Amino acid sequence: MNGFDFDEHLRNRKAVIDEALERLLSTFDEPLGRLHEAMRYAVIDGGKRIRPILTLDACYAVGGDDRLALPAACAIELIHSYSLVHDDMPCLDNDDYRRGQPTCHRAFGEAMALLCGDALLTLAFEVLADEQIKAGVPTDVAMEVIRVIAKAAGHLGMVGGQAKDIEAQERLSAGEQLHELELYDIHRRKTGALIAASVEVGAIIGGAFKWQRKALREYGEWIGFAFQVVDDLIDAAGEPKKGKWEPNAVMVLGVDGARHLVNEAVKCALMQLRQFDERAEPLRAFASFLLERLG
Amino acid sequence: MNGFDFDEHLRNRKAVIDEALERLLSTFDEPLGRLHEAMRYAVIDGGKRIRPILTLDACYAVGGDDRLALPAACAIELIHSYSLVHDDMPCLDNDDYRRGQPTCHRAFGEAMALLCGDALLTLAFEVLADEQIKAGVPTDVAMEVIRVIAKAAGHLGMVGGQAKDIEAQERLSAGEQLHELELYDIHRRKTGALIAASVEVGAIIGGAFKWQRKALREYGEWIGFAFQVVDDLIDAAGEPKKGKWEPNAVMVLGVDGARHLVNEAVKCALMQLRQFDERAEPLRAFASFLLERLG
Repeated sequence: MNGFDFDEHLRNRKAVIDEALERLLSTFDEPLGRLHEAMRYAVIDGGKRIRPILTLDACYAVGGDDRLALPAACAIELIHSYSLVHDDMPCLDNDDYRRGQPTCHRAFGEAMALLCGDALLTLAFEVLADEQIKAGVPTDVAMEVIRVIAKAAGHLGMVGGQAKDIEAQERLSAGEQLHELELYDIHRRKTGALIAASVEVGAIIGGAFKWQRKALREYGEWIGFAFQVVDDLIDAAGEPKKGKWEPNAVMVLGVDGARHLVNEAVKCALMQLRQFDERAEPLRAFASFLLERLG
Repeated sequence: MNGFDFDEHLRNRKAVIDEALERLLSTFDEPLGRLHEAMRYAVIDGGKRIRPILTLDACYAVGGDDRLALPAACAIELIHSYSLVHDDMPCLDNDDYRRGQPTCHRAFGEAMALLCGDALLTLAFEVLADEQIKAGVPTDVAMEVIRVIAKAAGHLGMVGGQAKDIEAQERLSAGEQLHELELYDIHRRKTGALIAASVEVGAIIGGAFKWQRKALREYGEWIGFAFQVVDDLIDAAGEPKKGKWEPNAVMVLGVDGARHLVNEAVKCALMQLRQFDERAEPLRAFASFLLERLG
Protein backbone atom coordinates (compact mmCIF):
# COMPACT_ATOMS: atom_id res chain seq x y z
CA MET A 1 0.00 0.00 0.00
CA ASN A 2 2.49 2.60 -1.22
CA GLY A 3 4.61 2.20 1.88
CA PHE A 4 1.77 3.32 4.17
CA ASP A 5 2.73 2.18 7.66
CA PHE A 6 -0.55 1.35 9.43
CA ASP A 7 1.05 0.55 12.81
CA GLU A 8 2.77 3.91 12.87
CA HIS A 9 -0.46 5.58 11.78
CA LEU A 10 -2.32 3.95 14.69
CA ARG A 11 0.38 5.00 17.16
CA ASN A 12 0.31 8.61 15.96
CA ARG A 13 -3.46 8.81 16.03
CA LYS A 14 -3.61 7.22 19.47
CA ALA A 15 -1.08 9.72 20.82
CA VAL A 16 -3.16 12.67 19.59
CA ILE A 17 -6.36 11.23 21.06
CA ASP A 18 -4.76 10.28 24.37
CA GLU A 19 -3.40 13.78 24.75
CA ALA A 20 -6.79 15.34 24.03
CA LEU A 21 -8.54 13.00 26.50
CA GLU A 22 -5.89 13.70 29.11
CA ARG A 23 -6.50 17.44 28.67
CA LEU A 24 -10.28 17.00 28.91
CA LEU A 25 -9.95 15.02 32.12
CA SER A 26 -7.38 17.18 33.88
CA THR A 27 -8.54 20.74 33.24
CA PHE A 28 -11.77 20.78 35.21
CA ASP A 29 -13.04 24.13 36.49
CA GLU A 30 -13.22 22.74 40.02
CA PRO A 31 -11.79 19.61 41.59
CA LEU A 32 -14.38 17.01 42.50
CA GLY A 33 -12.41 14.43 44.43
CA ARG A 34 -13.10 10.78 43.83
CA LEU A 35 -15.56 11.26 40.97
CA HIS A 36 -12.88 12.91 38.86
CA GLU A 37 -10.36 10.24 39.86
CA ALA A 38 -12.79 7.54 38.78
CA MET A 39 -13.47 9.29 35.47
CA ARG A 40 -9.76 9.53 34.70
CA TYR A 41 -9.22 5.93 35.78
CA ALA A 42 -11.95 4.74 33.43
CA VAL A 43 -10.77 6.67 30.38
CA ILE A 44 -6.97 6.87 30.70
CA ASP A 45 -6.56 3.12 30.57
CA GLY A 46 -4.35 2.22 27.64
CA GLY A 47 -7.33 1.58 25.36
CA LYS A 48 -6.69 1.14 21.64
CA ARG A 49 -8.86 4.17 20.71
CA ILE A 50 -10.28 2.36 17.66
CA ARG A 51 -13.47 4.43 17.50
CA PRO A 52 -11.91 7.91 17.69
CA ILE A 53 -9.22 6.84 15.21
CA LEU A 54 -11.97 5.87 12.76
CA THR A 55 -13.56 9.30 13.27
CA LEU A 56 -10.33 11.11 12.40
CA ASP A 57 -9.64 8.75 9.48
CA ALA A 58 -13.12 9.22 8.02
CA CYS A 59 -12.76 12.99 8.24
CA TYR A 60 -9.41 12.74 6.45
CA ALA A 61 -10.83 10.37 3.83
CA VAL A 62 -13.25 13.03 2.57
CA GLY A 63 -10.55 15.70 2.53
CA GLY A 64 -11.55 17.35 5.81
CA ASP A 65 -9.33 18.89 8.47
CA ASP A 66 -9.13 16.09 10.99
CA ARG A 67 -8.35 18.46 13.88
CA LEU A 68 -11.98 19.61 13.64
CA ALA A 69 -13.06 16.03 14.33
CA LEU A 70 -10.99 15.67 17.51
CA PRO A 71 -13.72 16.80 19.98
CA ALA A 72 -16.27 14.40 18.46
CA ALA A 73 -13.64 11.64 18.47
CA CYS A 74 -13.02 12.23 22.19
CA ALA A 75 -16.76 12.32 22.94
CA ILE A 76 -17.19 8.93 21.28
CA GLU A 77 -14.36 7.48 23.36
CA LEU A 78 -15.96 8.91 26.53
CA ILE A 79 -19.19 7.12 25.57
CA HIS A 80 -17.32 3.89 24.88
CA SER A 81 -15.56 4.22 28.26
CA TYR A 82 -18.79 4.84 30.17
CA SER A 83 -20.35 1.78 28.55
CA LEU A 84 -17.44 -0.39 29.72
CA VAL A 85 -17.73 0.93 33.29
CA HIS A 86 -21.45 0.15 33.45
CA ASP A 87 -21.10 -3.19 31.61
CA ASP A 88 -18.46 -4.38 34.07
CA MET A 89 -20.71 -3.76 37.07
CA PRO A 90 -21.99 -6.70 39.14
CA CYS A 91 -25.55 -6.43 37.81
CA LEU A 92 -24.29 -6.78 34.22
CA ASP A 93 -21.07 -8.66 33.38
CA ASN A 94 -19.64 -8.63 36.92
CA ASP A 95 -16.04 -8.35 35.73
CA ASP A 96 -13.26 -7.74 38.24
CA TYR A 97 -10.50 -6.90 35.80
CA ARG A 98 -10.15 -5.01 32.56
CA ARG A 99 -6.83 -4.83 30.77
CA GLY A 100 -5.17 -6.32 33.85
CA GLN A 101 -6.41 -3.55 36.17
CA PRO A 102 -9.30 -3.73 38.65
CA THR A 103 -12.50 -2.55 36.99
CA CYS A 104 -13.85 0.85 38.03
CA HIS A 105 -16.31 -0.53 40.58
CA ARG A 106 -13.60 -2.73 42.11
CA ALA A 107 -11.33 0.27 42.46
CA PHE A 108 -13.89 2.93 43.52
CA GLY A 109 -16.97 1.04 44.70
CA GLU A 110 -20.21 0.40 42.87
CA ALA A 111 -21.87 3.70 43.72
CA MET A 112 -18.97 5.74 42.40
CA ALA A 113 -18.69 3.56 39.27
CA LEU A 114 -22.37 4.07 38.49
CA LEU A 115 -21.96 7.85 38.85
CA CYS A 116 -18.67 7.78 36.93
CA GLY A 117 -20.44 6.23 33.94
CA ASP A 118 -23.26 8.76 34.17
CA ALA A 119 -20.75 11.61 34.35
CA LEU A 120 -18.72 10.36 31.37
CA LEU A 121 -21.84 10.02 29.21
CA THR A 122 -22.96 13.52 30.14
CA LEU A 123 -19.47 14.91 29.59
CA ALA A 124 -19.49 13.47 26.07
CA PHE A 125 -22.45 15.68 25.20
CA GLU A 126 -20.89 18.68 26.94
CA VAL A 127 -17.79 18.18 24.78
CA LEU A 128 -19.94 17.87 21.64
CA ALA A 129 -21.79 21.10 22.45
CA ASP A 130 -18.81 23.06 23.71
CA GLU A 131 -15.45 21.90 22.36
CA GLN A 132 -16.75 21.26 18.85
CA ILE A 133 -17.90 24.87 18.51
CA LYS A 134 -14.66 26.19 20.05
CA ALA A 135 -12.69 24.09 17.53
CA GLY A 136 -14.56 25.81 14.70
CA VAL A 137 -17.11 23.20 13.65
CA PRO A 138 -20.16 25.04 12.22
CA THR A 139 -23.13 24.86 14.60
CA ASP A 140 -25.43 22.99 12.22
CA VAL A 141 -22.73 20.40 11.54
CA ALA A 142 -22.07 20.01 15.28
CA MET A 143 -25.81 19.56 15.88
CA GLU A 144 -26.01 16.81 13.26
CA VAL A 145 -23.06 15.10 14.96
CA ILE A 146 -24.88 15.17 18.32
CA ARG A 147 -27.97 13.70 16.68
CA VAL A 148 -26.06 10.83 15.06
CA ILE A 149 -24.12 10.00 18.23
CA ALA A 150 -27.16 10.18 20.52
CA LYS A 151 -29.10 7.81 18.27
CA ALA A 152 -26.17 5.39 18.00
CA ALA A 153 -25.53 5.33 21.74
CA GLY A 154 -29.13 5.16 22.91
CA HIS A 155 -32.16 2.92 23.23
CA LEU A 156 -32.19 1.73 19.61
CA GLY A 157 -28.39 1.56 19.41
CA MET A 158 -25.75 0.58 21.94
CA VAL A 159 -27.90 0.54 25.08
CA GLY A 160 -30.66 -1.24 23.18
CA GLY A 161 -28.19 -3.91 22.06
CA GLN A 162 -27.03 -4.39 25.62
CA ALA A 163 -30.66 -4.80 26.74
CA LYS A 164 -31.33 -7.36 24.01
CA ASP A 165 -28.13 -9.14 24.98
CA ILE A 166 -29.40 -9.53 28.56
CA GLU A 167 -32.70 -10.89 27.34
CA ALA A 168 -30.88 -13.32 25.04
CA GLN A 169 -28.65 -14.50 27.90
CA GLU A 170 -31.72 -15.22 30.00
CA ARG A 171 -33.26 -17.30 27.24
CA LEU A 172 -29.98 -19.15 26.56
CA SER A 173 -29.68 -19.97 30.26
CA ALA A 174 -33.21 -21.36 30.11
CA GLY A 175 -32.05 -23.74 27.39
CA GLU A 176 -33.55 -21.88 24.45
CA GLN A 177 -31.73 -21.46 21.15
CA LEU A 178 -30.48 -18.16 19.78
CA HIS A 179 -31.49 -17.47 16.21
CA GLU A 180 -28.77 -16.24 13.86
CA LEU A 181 -30.80 -13.15 12.95
CA GLU A 182 -31.22 -12.27 16.60
CA LEU A 183 -27.47 -12.44 17.11
CA TYR A 184 -26.91 -10.10 14.17
CA ASP A 185 -29.41 -7.66 15.62
CA ILE A 186 -27.63 -7.65 19.00
CA HIS A 187 -24.21 -7.16 17.38
CA ARG A 188 -25.47 -4.44 15.07
CA ARG A 189 -26.72 -2.43 18.01
CA LYS A 190 -24.33 -3.27 20.83
CA THR A 191 -21.02 -2.78 19.01
CA GLY A 192 -21.91 -1.85 15.45
CA ALA A 193 -23.96 1.27 16.06
CA LEU A 194 -21.27 3.30 17.83
CA ILE A 195 -18.53 2.18 15.42
CA ALA A 196 -20.69 3.11 12.42
CA ALA A 197 -21.43 6.46 14.06
CA SER A 198 -17.71 7.02 14.68
CA VAL A 199 -17.08 6.77 10.96
CA GLU A 200 -20.18 8.71 9.95
CA VAL A 201 -19.52 11.73 12.17
CA GLY A 202 -15.96 11.94 10.86
CA ALA A 203 -17.44 12.13 7.37
CA ILE A 204 -20.00 14.76 8.43
CA ILE A 205 -17.37 16.98 10.06
CA GLY A 206 -15.07 16.56 7.06
CA GLY A 207 -17.80 18.03 4.82
CA ALA A 208 -18.63 14.77 3.01
CA PHE A 209 -20.90 14.80 -0.02
CA LYS A 210 -24.08 12.84 0.48
CA TRP A 211 -22.75 9.77 -1.39
CA GLN A 212 -19.53 9.85 0.63
CA ARG A 213 -21.39 10.02 3.92
CA LYS A 214 -23.61 7.11 2.87
CA ALA A 215 -20.69 5.00 1.68
CA LEU A 216 -18.67 5.66 4.83
CA ARG A 217 -21.67 4.95 7.03
CA GLU A 218 -22.02 1.57 5.33
CA TYR A 219 -18.28 0.97 5.56
CA GLY A 220 -18.65 1.64 9.31
CA GLU A 221 -21.53 -0.79 9.67
CA TRP A 222 -19.59 -3.61 7.99
CA ILE A 223 -16.47 -2.82 9.99
CA GLY A 224 -18.43 -2.74 13.24
CA PHE A 225 -20.00 -6.06 12.43
CA ALA A 226 -16.69 -7.68 11.47
CA PHE A 227 -15.07 -6.23 14.59
CA GLN A 228 -17.61 -7.91 16.87
CA VAL A 229 -17.39 -11.29 15.11
CA VAL A 230 -13.60 -11.18 15.41
CA ASP A 231 -14.06 -10.54 19.13
CA ASP A 232 -16.43 -13.48 19.31
CA LEU A 233 -13.84 -15.69 17.63
CA ILE A 234 -11.14 -14.53 20.06
CA ASP A 235 -13.50 -15.07 23.04
CA ALA A 236 -14.49 -18.51 21.82
CA ALA A 237 -10.82 -19.51 21.51
CA GLY A 238 -10.06 -18.44 25.09
CA GLU A 239 -11.29 -19.53 28.51
CA PRO A 240 -15.07 -19.76 28.96
CA LYS A 241 -16.37 -16.84 31.04
CA LYS A 242 -17.68 -18.19 34.34
CA GLY A 243 -20.05 -20.50 32.51
CA LYS A 244 -22.13 -17.54 31.35
CA TRP A 245 -24.15 -17.87 28.17
CA GLU A 246 -23.15 -14.93 26.08
CA PRO A 247 -24.52 -14.53 22.58
CA ASN A 248 -21.58 -15.33 20.35
CA ALA A 249 -21.29 -15.80 16.59
CA VAL A 250 -19.19 -18.96 17.02
CA MET A 251 -22.00 -20.53 19.04
CA VAL A 252 -24.42 -19.91 16.19
CA LEU A 253 -22.21 -20.36 13.11
CA GLY A 254 -19.22 -22.37 14.26
CA VAL A 255 -15.60 -21.20 13.87
CA ASP A 256 -15.49 -21.63 10.09
CA GLY A 257 -18.83 -19.93 9.61
CA ALA A 258 -17.77 -16.99 11.75
CA ARG A 259 -14.43 -16.63 9.96
CA HIS A 260 -16.17 -16.71 6.62
CA LEU A 261 -18.56 -14.01 7.84
CA VAL A 262 -15.67 -11.71 8.83
CA ASN A 263 -14.09 -12.13 5.41
CA GLU A 264 -17.31 -11.27 3.62
CA ALA A 265 -18.01 -8.27 5.87
CA VAL A 266 -14.52 -6.87 5.30
CA LYS A 267 -14.97 -7.27 1.53
CA CYS A 268 -18.24 -5.35 1.72
CA ALA A 269 -16.55 -2.64 3.79
CA LEU A 270 -13.76 -2.30 1.21
CA MET A 271 -16.30 -2.20 -1.64
CA GLN A 272 -17.82 0.90 -0.06
CA LEU A 273 -14.45 2.66 -0.37
CA ARG A 274 -13.98 1.93 -4.07
CA GLN A 275 -14.74 5.49 -5.16
CA PHE A 276 -12.41 7.08 -2.58
CA ASP A 277 -8.86 8.20 -3.36
CA GLU A 278 -5.65 7.50 -1.44
CA ARG A 279 -6.85 9.49 1.56
CA ALA A 280 -9.04 6.49 2.38
CA GLU A 281 -5.90 4.34 2.76
CA PRO A 282 -6.09 4.33 6.59
CA LEU A 283 -9.71 3.12 6.42
CA ARG A 284 -8.75 0.41 3.93
CA ALA A 285 -5.84 -0.63 6.12
CA PHE A 286 -8.18 -0.84 9.11
CA ALA A 287 -10.38 -3.32 7.28
CA SER A 288 -7.37 -5.47 6.41
CA PHE A 289 -6.15 -5.19 9.99
CA LEU A 290 -9.35 -6.92 11.14
CA LEU A 291 -8.50 -9.88 8.91
CA GLU A 292 -4.99 -9.95 10.38
CA ARG A 293 -6.42 -10.11 13.92
CA LEU A 294 -8.04 -13.36 12.82
CA GLY A 295 -4.54 -14.77 12.26
CA MET B 1 -52.39 37.90 42.44
CA ASN B 2 -55.02 39.20 40.03
CA GLY B 3 -57.02 36.01 40.26
CA PHE B 4 -54.16 33.92 38.89
CA ASP B 5 -54.96 30.31 39.78
CA PHE B 6 -51.63 28.60 40.37
CA ASP B 7 -53.08 25.15 40.97
CA GLU B 8 -54.94 25.26 37.68
CA HIS B 9 -51.79 26.56 35.99
CA LEU B 10 -49.78 23.60 37.34
CA ARG B 11 -52.46 21.14 36.21
CA ASN B 12 -52.53 22.60 32.69
CA ARG B 13 -48.77 22.65 32.35
CA LYS B 14 -48.45 19.11 33.69
CA ALA B 15 -51.03 17.86 31.17
CA VAL B 16 -49.08 19.37 28.26
CA ILE B 17 -45.80 17.91 29.48
CA ASP B 18 -47.26 14.48 30.25
CA GLU B 19 -48.74 14.32 26.78
CA ALA B 20 -45.42 15.24 25.16
CA LEU B 21 -43.52 12.68 27.26
CA GLU B 22 -46.13 10.03 26.46
CA ARG B 23 -45.65 10.77 22.76
CA LEU B 24 -41.83 10.62 23.05
CA LEU B 25 -42.01 7.26 24.81
CA SER B 26 -44.59 5.58 22.61
CA THR B 27 -43.58 6.49 19.08
CA PHE B 28 -40.29 4.64 18.80
CA ASP B 29 -39.09 3.63 15.33
CA GLU B 30 -38.75 0.02 16.45
CA PRO B 31 -40.03 -1.82 19.51
CA LEU B 32 -37.32 -2.81 21.95
CA GLY B 33 -39.13 -4.98 24.45
CA ARG B 34 -38.38 -4.63 28.10
CA LEU B 35 -36.02 -1.66 27.76
CA HIS B 36 -38.81 0.47 26.34
CA GLU B 37 -41.21 -0.79 29.00
CA ALA B 38 -38.72 0.17 31.70
CA MET B 39 -38.20 3.62 30.17
CA ARG B 40 -41.95 4.28 30.10
CA TYR B 41 -42.33 2.94 33.63
CA ALA B 42 -39.63 5.28 34.91
CA VAL B 43 -40.97 8.41 33.24
CA ILE B 44 -44.76 8.00 33.13
CA ASP B 45 -45.04 7.84 36.88
CA GLY B 46 -47.31 10.63 38.05
CA GLY B 47 -44.38 12.96 38.78
CA LYS B 48 -45.12 16.62 39.50
CA ARG B 49 -43.09 17.85 36.49
CA ILE B 50 -41.70 20.79 38.47
CA ARG B 51 -38.58 21.21 36.32
CA PRO B 52 -40.24 21.22 32.88
CA ILE B 53 -42.97 23.52 34.20
CA LEU B 54 -40.26 25.98 35.27
CA THR B 55 -38.78 25.78 31.76
CA LEU B 56 -42.08 26.66 30.11
CA ASP B 57 -42.79 29.37 32.71
CA ALA B 58 -39.37 30.99 32.24
CA CYS B 59 -39.85 31.02 28.47
CA TYR B 60 -43.25 32.66 28.95
CA ALA B 61 -41.81 35.16 31.46
CA VAL B 62 -39.53 36.70 28.82
CA GLY B 63 -42.32 36.83 26.25
CA GLY B 64 -41.28 33.72 24.34
CA ASP B 65 -43.46 31.08 22.67
CA ASP B 66 -43.49 28.37 25.30
CA ARG B 67 -44.27 25.64 22.74
CA LEU B 68 -40.68 26.07 21.50
CA ALA B 69 -39.46 25.17 24.98
CA LEU B 70 -41.42 21.91 25.18
CA PRO B 71 -38.67 19.62 23.80
CA ALA B 72 -36.09 21.03 26.22
CA ALA B 73 -38.62 20.75 29.05
CA CYS B 74 -39.14 17.06 28.21
CA ALA B 75 -35.40 16.44 27.95
CA ILE B 76 -34.91 17.86 31.44
CA GLU B 77 -37.62 15.60 32.82
CA LEU B 78 -35.96 12.60 31.13
CA ILE B 79 -32.72 13.52 32.88
CA HIS B 80 -34.51 13.92 36.20
CA SER B 81 -36.16 10.52 35.68
CA TYR B 82 -32.90 8.77 34.82
CA SER B 83 -31.29 10.21 37.96
CA LEU B 84 -34.10 8.80 40.11
CA VAL B 85 -33.74 5.34 38.53
CA HIS B 86 -30.00 5.24 39.18
CA ASP B 87 -30.29 6.83 42.65
CA ASP B 88 -32.82 4.21 43.75
CA MET B 89 -30.50 1.33 42.84
CA PRO B 90 -29.08 -0.90 45.59
CA CYS B 91 -25.56 0.55 45.32
CA LEU B 92 -26.91 4.06 45.96
CA ASP B 93 -30.08 4.68 47.99
CA ASN B 94 -31.42 1.11 47.75
CA ASP B 95 -35.05 2.20 47.67
CA ASP B 96 -37.79 -0.35 46.96
CA TYR B 97 -40.64 2.05 46.39
CA ARG B 98 -41.14 5.41 44.73
CA ARG B 99 -44.53 7.11 44.79
CA GLY B 100 -46.03 3.87 46.09
CA GLN B 101 -44.82 1.79 43.14
CA PRO B 102 -41.85 -0.60 43.04
CA THR B 103 -38.74 1.24 41.90
CA CYS B 104 -37.48 0.48 38.40
CA HIS B 105 -34.90 -2.08 39.51
CA ARG B 106 -37.50 -3.84 41.69
CA ALA B 107 -39.84 -4.05 38.72
CA PHE B 108 -37.34 -4.83 35.93
CA GLY B 109 -34.17 -6.05 37.64
CA GLU B 110 -30.96 -4.16 38.31
CA ALA B 111 -29.38 -4.73 34.91
CA MET B 112 -32.39 -3.35 33.06
CA ALA B 113 -32.68 -0.40 35.47
CA LEU B 114 -29.06 0.54 34.89
CA LEU B 115 -29.58 0.42 31.12
CA CYS B 116 -32.91 2.22 31.42
CA GLY B 117 -31.19 5.16 33.14
CA ASP B 118 -28.45 5.20 30.51
CA ALA B 119 -31.04 5.14 27.73
CA LEU B 120 -33.11 7.96 29.24
CA LEU B 121 -30.06 10.20 29.66
CA THR B 122 -29.02 9.55 26.06
CA LEU B 123 -32.58 10.08 24.82
CA ALA B 124 -32.60 13.49 26.51
CA PHE B 125 -29.75 14.62 24.28
CA GLU B 126 -31.35 13.04 21.22
CA VAL B 127 -34.50 15.06 21.96
CA LEU B 128 -32.43 18.23 22.43
CA ALA B 129 -30.66 17.71 19.09
CA ASP B 130 -33.66 16.49 17.15
CA GLU B 131 -37.04 17.66 18.50
CA GLN B 132 -35.81 21.14 19.35
CA ILE B 133 -34.79 21.79 15.74
CA LYS B 134 -38.01 20.24 14.41
CA ALA B 135 -39.99 22.53 16.73
CA GLY B 136 -38.28 25.54 15.16
CA VAL B 137 -35.68 26.47 17.77
CA PRO B 138 -32.73 28.12 15.94
CA THR B 139 -29.69 25.84 15.87
CA ASP B 140 -27.38 28.15 17.83
CA VAL B 141 -30.03 28.56 20.54
CA ALA B 142 -30.58 24.79 20.68
CA MET B 143 -26.81 24.27 20.98
CA GLU B 144 -26.59 26.70 23.89
CA VAL B 145 -29.43 24.79 25.58
CA ILE B 146 -27.51 21.51 25.21
CA ARG B 147 -24.42 23.14 26.68
CA VAL B 148 -26.28 24.49 29.72
CA ILE B 149 -28.11 21.21 30.38
CA ALA B 150 -25.00 19.03 29.95
CA LYS B 151 -23.06 21.17 32.41
CA ALA B 152 -25.90 21.18 34.94
CA ALA B 153 -26.44 17.41 34.74
CA GLY B 154 -22.79 16.35 34.73
CA HIS B 155 -19.69 15.98 36.83
CA LEU B 156 -19.72 19.49 38.29
CA GLY B 157 -23.53 19.57 38.58
CA MET B 158 -26.07 16.89 39.46
CA VAL B 159 -23.81 13.82 39.21
CA GLY B 160 -21.05 15.68 41.04
CA GLY B 161 -23.46 16.54 43.85
CA GLN B 162 -24.50 12.91 44.12
CA ALA B 163 -20.83 11.88 44.33
CA LYS B 164 -20.16 14.45 47.07
CA ASP B 165 -23.28 13.24 48.86
CA ILE B 166 -21.89 9.69 48.96
CA GLU B 167 -18.57 10.92 50.31
CA ALA B 168 -20.38 12.98 52.95
CA GLN B 169 -22.50 9.97 53.98
CA GLU B 170 -19.34 7.93 54.46
CA ARG B 171 -17.83 10.59 56.67
CA LEU B 172 -21.05 11.02 58.66
CA SER B 173 -21.22 7.27 59.23
CA ALA B 174 -17.67 7.44 60.53
CA GLY B 175 -18.83 9.94 63.14
CA GLU B 176 -17.49 13.06 61.44
CA GLN B 177 -19.42 16.32 61.30
CA LEU B 178 -20.83 17.88 58.16
CA HIS B 179 -19.92 21.52 57.70
CA GLU B 180 -22.74 23.87 56.72
CA LEU B 181 -20.83 25.06 53.64
CA GLU B 182 -20.34 21.49 52.49
CA LEU B 183 -24.06 20.85 52.75
CA TYR B 184 -24.79 23.92 50.64
CA ASP B 185 -22.32 22.73 48.01
CA ILE B 186 -23.99 19.30 47.82
CA HIS B 187 -27.46 20.86 47.56
CA ARG B 188 -26.36 23.38 44.96
CA ARG B 189 -25.10 20.62 42.72
CA LYS B 190 -27.37 17.69 43.42
CA THR B 191 -30.75 19.42 43.17
CA GLY B 192 -30.00 23.06 42.48
CA ALA B 193 -28.03 22.75 39.25
CA LEU B 194 -30.74 21.03 37.19
CA ILE B 195 -33.52 23.27 38.57
CA ALA B 196 -31.48 26.40 37.79
CA ALA B 197 -30.79 25.04 34.30
CA SER B 198 -34.52 24.33 33.81
CA VAL B 199 -35.26 28.01 34.34
CA GLU B 200 -32.25 29.25 32.39
CA VAL B 201 -32.94 27.23 29.24
CA GLY B 202 -36.54 28.43 29.22
CA ALA B 203 -35.18 31.97 29.24
CA ILE B 204 -32.67 31.18 26.47
CA ILE B 205 -35.32 29.64 24.22
CA GLY B 206 -37.68 32.54 24.93
CA GLY B 207 -35.10 34.95 23.55
CA ALA B 208 -34.20 36.55 26.89
CA PHE B 209 -32.04 39.64 27.01
CA LYS B 210 -28.77 39.12 28.85
CA TRP B 211 -30.06 40.71 32.08
CA GLN B 212 -33.20 38.59 31.94
CA ARG B 213 -31.26 35.38 31.49
CA LYS B 214 -28.97 36.30 34.38
CA ALA B 215 -31.87 37.26 36.67
CA LEU B 216 -33.81 34.08 35.84
CA ARG B 217 -30.72 31.93 36.31
CA GLU B 218 -30.30 33.40 39.78
CA TYR B 219 -34.01 33.02 40.49
CA GLY B 220 -33.57 29.34 39.54
CA GLU B 221 -30.59 28.90 41.84
CA TRP B 222 -32.50 30.30 44.83
CA ILE B 223 -35.57 28.27 43.98
CA GLY B 224 -33.52 25.10 43.61
CA PHE B 225 -31.86 25.72 46.93
CA ALA B 226 -35.14 26.46 48.72
CA PHE B 227 -36.71 23.39 47.11
CA GLN B 228 -34.06 21.09 48.55
CA VAL B 229 -34.20 22.59 52.03
CA VAL B 230 -38.00 22.18 52.02
CA ASP B 231 -37.45 18.52 51.10
CA ASP B 232 -34.98 18.22 53.96
CA LEU B 233 -37.57 19.66 56.35
CA ILE B 234 -40.22 17.22 55.11
CA ASP B 235 -37.76 14.29 55.36
CA ALA B 236 -36.70 15.31 58.86
CA ALA B 237 -40.35 15.43 59.97
CA GLY B 238 -41.02 11.91 58.66
CA GLU B 239 -39.66 8.47 59.49
CA PRO B 240 -35.88 8.11 59.59
CA LYS B 241 -34.58 6.28 56.49
CA LYS B 242 -33.14 2.93 57.55
CA GLY B 243 -30.76 4.68 59.92
CA LYS B 244 -28.83 6.14 56.98
CA TRP B 245 -26.89 9.34 57.47
CA GLU B 246 -28.04 11.59 54.71
CA PRO B 247 -26.77 15.14 54.51
CA ASN B 248 -29.74 17.22 55.58
CA ALA B 249 -30.14 20.92 56.32
CA VAL B 250 -32.12 20.20 59.48
CA MET B 251 -29.21 18.18 60.84
CA VAL B 252 -26.90 21.13 60.35
CA LEU B 253 -29.19 24.09 61.08
CA GLY B 254 -32.08 22.71 63.12
CA VAL B 255 -35.73 23.07 62.08
CA ASP B 256 -35.95 26.80 62.76
CA GLY B 257 -32.67 27.52 61.02
CA ALA B 258 -33.75 25.55 57.96
CA ARG B 259 -37.18 27.25 57.84
CA HIS B 260 -35.52 30.64 58.11
CA LEU B 261 -33.20 29.71 55.25
CA VAL B 262 -36.13 28.78 52.98
CA ASN B 263 -37.79 32.10 53.70
CA GLU B 264 -34.67 34.05 52.87
CA ALA B 265 -33.99 32.05 49.69
CA VAL B 266 -37.54 32.59 48.45
CA LYS B 267 -37.19 36.33 49.10
CA CYS B 268 -33.98 36.39 47.06
CA ALA B 269 -35.70 34.47 44.27
CA LEU B 270 -38.58 36.97 44.20
CA MET B 271 -36.14 39.90 44.23
CA GLN B 272 -34.66 38.60 40.97
CA LEU B 273 -38.09 38.93 39.36
CA ARG B 274 -38.66 42.55 40.37
CA GLN B 275 -38.05 43.91 36.85
CA PHE B 276 -40.34 41.38 35.16
CA ASP B 277 -43.95 42.12 34.21
CA GLU B 278 -47.07 40.05 34.86
CA ARG B 279 -45.84 37.24 32.62
CA ALA B 280 -43.54 36.27 35.49
CA GLU B 281 -46.58 35.64 37.69
CA PRO B 282 -46.28 31.83 37.43
CA LEU B 283 -42.63 32.02 38.53
CA ARG B 284 -43.59 34.29 41.44
CA ALA B 285 -46.38 31.93 42.40
CA PHE B 286 -43.96 29.01 42.31
CA ALA B 287 -41.72 30.73 44.87
CA SER B 288 -44.69 31.36 47.17
CA PHE B 289 -45.80 27.75 46.66
CA LEU B 290 -42.52 26.59 48.21
CA LEU B 291 -43.34 28.57 51.35
CA GLU B 292 -46.80 26.98 51.42
CA ARG B 293 -45.27 23.50 51.27
CA LEU B 294 -43.57 24.42 54.54
CA GLY B 295 -47.04 24.76 56.06
